[in-house]
Amino acid sequence: MARILNIGLIGAGRMGRLHAKNIANQLSGTRLHAVADVVPEAARLCAEQNAGCLVSPDYREMLADPALDAVVICSGTHTHAEIIRDAAYAGKHIFCEKPIALTLADTDMALAAVQAAGVKLQLGFNRRFDPTMRRVYQARASGEIGAPQLLHIISRDPAPPPIAYIKTSGGIFLDMTIHDFDMARYIVGSEVQEVYARGNVLFDREIGRTGDFDTAVVMLNFANGALGTIENSRQAVYGYDQRLELLGGRGGVSAQNHFPNQVTISHAQFVRRDPPLNFFLERYVGSYLSEMTGFVDAIIDNTPVPVTGQDGRMALVLGLAATTSAREHRPVRVDEIG
Amino acid sequence: MARILNIGLIGAGRMGRLHAKNIANQLSGTRLHAVADVVPEAARLCAEQNAGCLVSPDYREMLADPALDAVVICSGTHTHAEIIRDAAYAGKHIFCEKPIALTLADTDMALAAVQAAGVKLQLGFNRRFDPTMRRVYQARASGEIGAPQLLHIISRDPAPPPIAYIKTSGGIFLDMTIHDFDMARYIVGSEVQEVYARGNVLFDREIGRTGDFDTAVVMLNFANGALGTIENSRQAVYGYDQRLELLGGRGGVSAQNHFPNQVTISHAQFVRRDPPLNFFLERYVGSYLSEMTGFVDAIIDNTPVPVTGQDGRMALVLGLAATTSAREHRPVRVDEIG
Amino acid sequence: MARILNIGLIGAGRMGRLHAKNIANQLSGTRLHAVADVVPEAARLCAEQNAGCLVSPDYREMLADPALDAVVICSGTHTHAEIIRDAAYAGKHIFCEKPIALTLADTDMALAAVQAAGVKLQLGFNRRFDPTMRRVYQARASGEIGAPQLLHIISRDPAPPPIAYIKTSGGIFLDMTIHDFDMARYIVGSEVQEVYARGNVLFDREIGRTGDFDTAVVMLNFANGALGTIENSRQAVYGYDQRLELLGGRGGVSAQNHFPNQVTISHAQFVRRDPPLNFFLERYVGSYLSEMTGFVDAIIDNTPVPVTGQDGRMALVLGLAATTSAREHRPVRVDEIG
Amino acid sequence: MARILNIGLIGAGRMGRLHAKNIANQLSGTRLHAVADVVPEAARLCAEQNAGCLVSPDYREMLADPALDAVVICSGTHTHAEIIRDAAYAGKHIFCEKPIALTLADTDMALAAVQAAGVKLQLGFNRRFDPTMRRVYQARASGEIGAPQLLHIISRDPAPPPIAYIKTSGGIFLDMTIHDFDMARYIVGSEVQEVYARGNVLFDREIGRTGDFDTAVVMLNFANGALGTIENSRQAVYGYDQRLELLGGRGGVSAQNHFPNQVTISHAQFVRRDPPLNFFLERYVGSYLSEMTGFVDAIIDNTPVPVTGQDGRMALVLGLAATTSAREHRPVRVDEIG
Repeated sequence: MARILNIGLIGAGRMGRLHAKNIANQLSGTRLHAVADVVPEAARLCAEQNAGCLVSPDYREMLADPALDAVVICSGTHTHAEIIRDAAYAGKHIFCEKPIALTLADTDMALAAVQAAGVKLQLGFNRRFDPTMRRVYQARASGEIGAPQLLHIISRDPAPPPIAYIKTSGGIFLDMTIHDFDMARYIVGSEVQEVYARGNVLFDREIGRTGDFDTAVVMLNFANGALGTIENSRQAVYGYDQRLELLGGRGGVSAQNHFPNQVTISHAQFVRRDPPLNFFLERYVGSYLSEMTGFVDAIIDNTPVPVTGQDGRMALVLGLAATTSAREHRPVRVDEIG
Repeated sequence: MARILNIGLIGAGRMGRLHAKNIANQLSGTRLHAVADVVPEAARLCAEQNAGCLVSPDYREMLADPALDAVVICSGTHTHAEIIRDAAYAGKHIFCEKPIALTLADTDMALAAVQAAGVKLQLGFNRRFDPTMRRVYQARASGEIGAPQLLHIISRDPAPPPIAYIKTSGGIFLDMTIHDFDMARYIVGSEVQEVYARGNVLFDREIGRTGDFDTAVVMLNFANGALGTIENSRQAVYGYDQRLELLGGRGGVSAQNHFPNQVTISHAQFVRRDPPLNFFLERYVGSYLSEMTGFVDAIIDNTPVPVTGQDGRMALVLGLAATTSAREHRPVRVDEIG
Repeated sequence: MARILNIGLIGAGRMGRLHAKNIANQLSGTRLHAVADVVPEAARLCAEQNAGCLVSPDYREMLADPALDAVVICSGTHTHAEIIRDAAYAGKHIFCEKPIALTLADTDMALAAVQAAGVKLQLGFNRRFDPTMRRVYQARASGEIGAPQLLHIISRDPAPPPIAYIKTSGGIFLDMTIHDFDMARYIVGSEVQEVYARGNVLFDREIGRTGDFDTAVVMLNFANGALGTIENSRQAVYGYDQRLELLGGRGGVSAQNHFPNQVTISHAQFVRRDPPLNFFLERYVGSYLSEMTGFVDAIIDNTPVPVTGQDGRMALVLGLAATTSAREHRPVRVDEIG
Repeated sequence: MARILNIGLIGAGRMGRLHAKNIANQLSGTRLHAVADVVPEAARLCAEQNAGCLVSPDYREMLADPALDAVVICSGTHTHAEIIRDAAYAGKHIFCEKPIALTLADTDMALAAVQAAGVKLQLGFNRRFDPTMRRVYQARASGEIGAPQLLHIISRDPAPPPIAYIKTSGGIFLDMTIHDFDMARYIVGSEVQEVYARGNVLFDREIGRTGDFDTAVVMLNFANGALGTIENSRQAVYGYDQRLELLGGRGGVSAQNHFPNQVTISHAQFVRRDPPLNFFLERYVGSYLSEMTGFVDAIIDNTPVPVTGQDGRMALVLGLAATTSAREHRPVRVDEIG
């Protein structure tokens, strides 16, 4: 179909503006139709940079526009489920930043609305679209390394987010590990049946005072017998550490960090290089365009979206299981959670 | 200055379209004003993708447009000098893909016109803007590795260009090594005083029949005493190989290739990774935007362009010296050439 | 002291012969005094290669020799505790291959005898003496990376041992992970308080039929708050995989595999290198000499041995805790074990 | 043959003692029979460490001993040719550290004596026996990378030798590059027909005052058409740099440095590792045993030695050609030299 897809942005913060730029400038066959944000100035600035883009004072007004084909939801987590529901009722396809919600109830409410409306919903688990992560996936999916056996994921931020954010984040397992739970399912190609999680407060007492952890480890048991471990830290002084590896029956595959350059400097005490790309916007820059391309193609070709609401639900379930496990100091079966 | 810079593209081939896209979509404060190409259809297609862009049947018509601020010249090499002259006379700033010309006479004619007109001329030696190459430059320029002593550049293509191209290219030293001559001056920060070059035909007899080489090595003597070597091959079966390193009095710095991912696969016979990014458009993708940004900033701020006509002239002089050296089987002083 | 240390070897299998060679040829100030093995021919062959070395038909005869200073025990695991006890009673210093025994009772019996006799006992946890593993230790012990937070150990064999060996090995946690438990204590510098272990049979049904696992993961909680994970597999098709890394408050340190050469080959499909050194004798070759040097120095200088009977006991305790955890599907506190 | 080979060491300096240790302790079927050194104390100390080893006050006395089978010559360069001649006349097989001599006349005199006597002569070009260098050789010799096209060798010392040594060394091309000339012939498998060399004094004026260079580059033209470059520096502050790579028609092969460990440390400013192994005794430790094993095997099996007098002569010829080229500022054909 050669028509232009009209996309509306709900939430003009950092992620929203990034998606807006891609939609307006990089993706052919789409245009940024409108922007809504609870902060009117944010919406206005964003719309300004994209010729012909409307400003919606309220997202519901955007949803009421018959010209709109789809929405991209980048507002605060607590608004996602409600906006998904409203967008589904309005018959608009939906791309939503993770997570859908911090509770299963809200998640299931949103998914039911999507199901009933028959619109497409894609979750913003962008790391799946990263060339390095994708290559690991291909190594497993193609059989290059045989049947998956042992997975290890390292995911560390350069520094914790503001404490105000931590307080409403749902905790490390719902806010940080949730990306790794999705990656684990994607890379291994099997559902997780049980988790065992431990957390600790090792360097940030403020985080501890909120009841959250700054460091966590999760063990996973997959349906296909594979075992996995995820390590998270809210602070690795050398930057953003995103590595993973999978051992299979015919070989192993491992993903290293991405660096700002491929330069090595040798001097008397050390051979050294600059640290890895420092945070998610740099490290995963290409993936945001790829995932949006995937969303747009699914709409245009009427094919399934590459990352579904079910994927979002499963990641939340694993996050809830891990939270319970760490709190109650026991392994938790996924079917306990729902 | 908050005005919009109007840029015209002359030559809508692969490089031209790439620059056009960046100007239209990525660079703020610029717009693609017009496109000219000897093939009208090429100009039309290019202009179509950029709202409001004019098609000029003839580049001189574009130059006559008072609204035009600058031109980007990506036409065939043999047309560069003449178009530079015409653009200079028309008072337009100029970005020109390398080389200016294949002879010193044509080069000097173009530079004289630019000098007389007082417009800016920037050469498209984009590799200087690559994050890896730039980091090597910084290691030397900052003193991190001390006084430069030994330079080595490896530059290999995955496959030779069509034989028709080879025939009018000016030979490997003017077509391929010319990038490395510019990089050598940039990285070492000193002028080359003498070259010694040898070429051979090792795998492509067709290339040999044109009188050109498919493999070449050049030794350089710099004014600051440093010594250097450049290796070129028209074909490295594993892809595009772009490495360089510099030893200095306080350390060494080396640049490795860029790869499509950071994945390693281990199996019974080998530990392996996918080969390097396969050709210049992939490998240097970011540099094209960076160099155009540098050009636009120089115009807007009225500062010197980062890569000058003199840089273009010097690279040609070194290419001519190497060509003479290889043909006459002797070292050639740069001041012999001009 | 410039006297020569007379050392007796008990058990002339592969490890015994390796230690014998080092004692005879590499370590100054020591000589191989006698060899005993339940297989007389094995003892004879070993003694033959070392001038002046006696053959003892029975190790007790060796122990009765007043000229003997120390013994190196490399006999079957089930004999270790008893021989340690006898050697202690005989007043001989003792180097014993891991483990002391497969039960705490036997271990404690042996340690009590050593304590009562006041002789030195060193355990053969040789990996501590490997230059790469040692450098990781130094990074933590020196404060280079700050307070330890997250440890990950990967330890995979190229292929499982014979099934007859598996049956009497005590299971994967006592036979394989035991090395990693020792390394974990050494690298982190803190005691493990709790473990959670899971095992699976993913590729070797024969191993499964013995009641053992071919794949296992263990999570560790350290007294200093650090968290750790160990992954073991009895088979990684690409060889012997021995990696570990530690995140600390001021940086991270990681140890990669050792390879037979530092050669990379690039061809059209892949950039590749030969797989890692294939098994422990190659990978840790230098460590066997270093640990024996440490033992000999401790005797000559009358200083503490670098790896003690207590280190051996603690590794066994952790192995028993992991075995219980995997069987009973729950976390196990180390103080449950003893 | 199961007899013991009696080997005599002539020259008990650092290299001599290293070879002595290997012969006495590591090589089966050989024994260190006698040691001679112009400094009697040196010979005595060396012999002491090897039971049954005689001290010869004069090497000629050693040569007169009918029990002696072979000699290992590690005395000063200026004595090599004469001792080779004397050993040949005495019917002893000869292992000689490089070079045979600093002039072709002396070299040819020695080779003639060896030829006439029918004894074996092996040159100590140990790098051929290094696992990494050997793997590069295999990549070419096996056809893995196709026909050789472009060779690059980097060879840098951590610091220059004492100025007294420099004065009698024959200059950088005969003292340092000579190893690389041998490696070039070995790796490429073709004779060098022409060289072009340039040297400079970049950091050590004392070296300059002797008329020698501290930095040099040599370009090579091989008979099979391949081109090569060698870079030497008497000082790379980060240590001992020994790398090389070869591009062939079917791929490329490259050899990296060896490091003391495989540990990487990441901190806020850099990701770093300890510098490469610092000098030749560490870097090539295994090669000295391998080359001596090759010599001994050739004698015992009566097969050709792996590195011949002709190899030594060719390396000298290339060194002389390079010296002439650098002095006279022109390419020099090898057949000019002899």
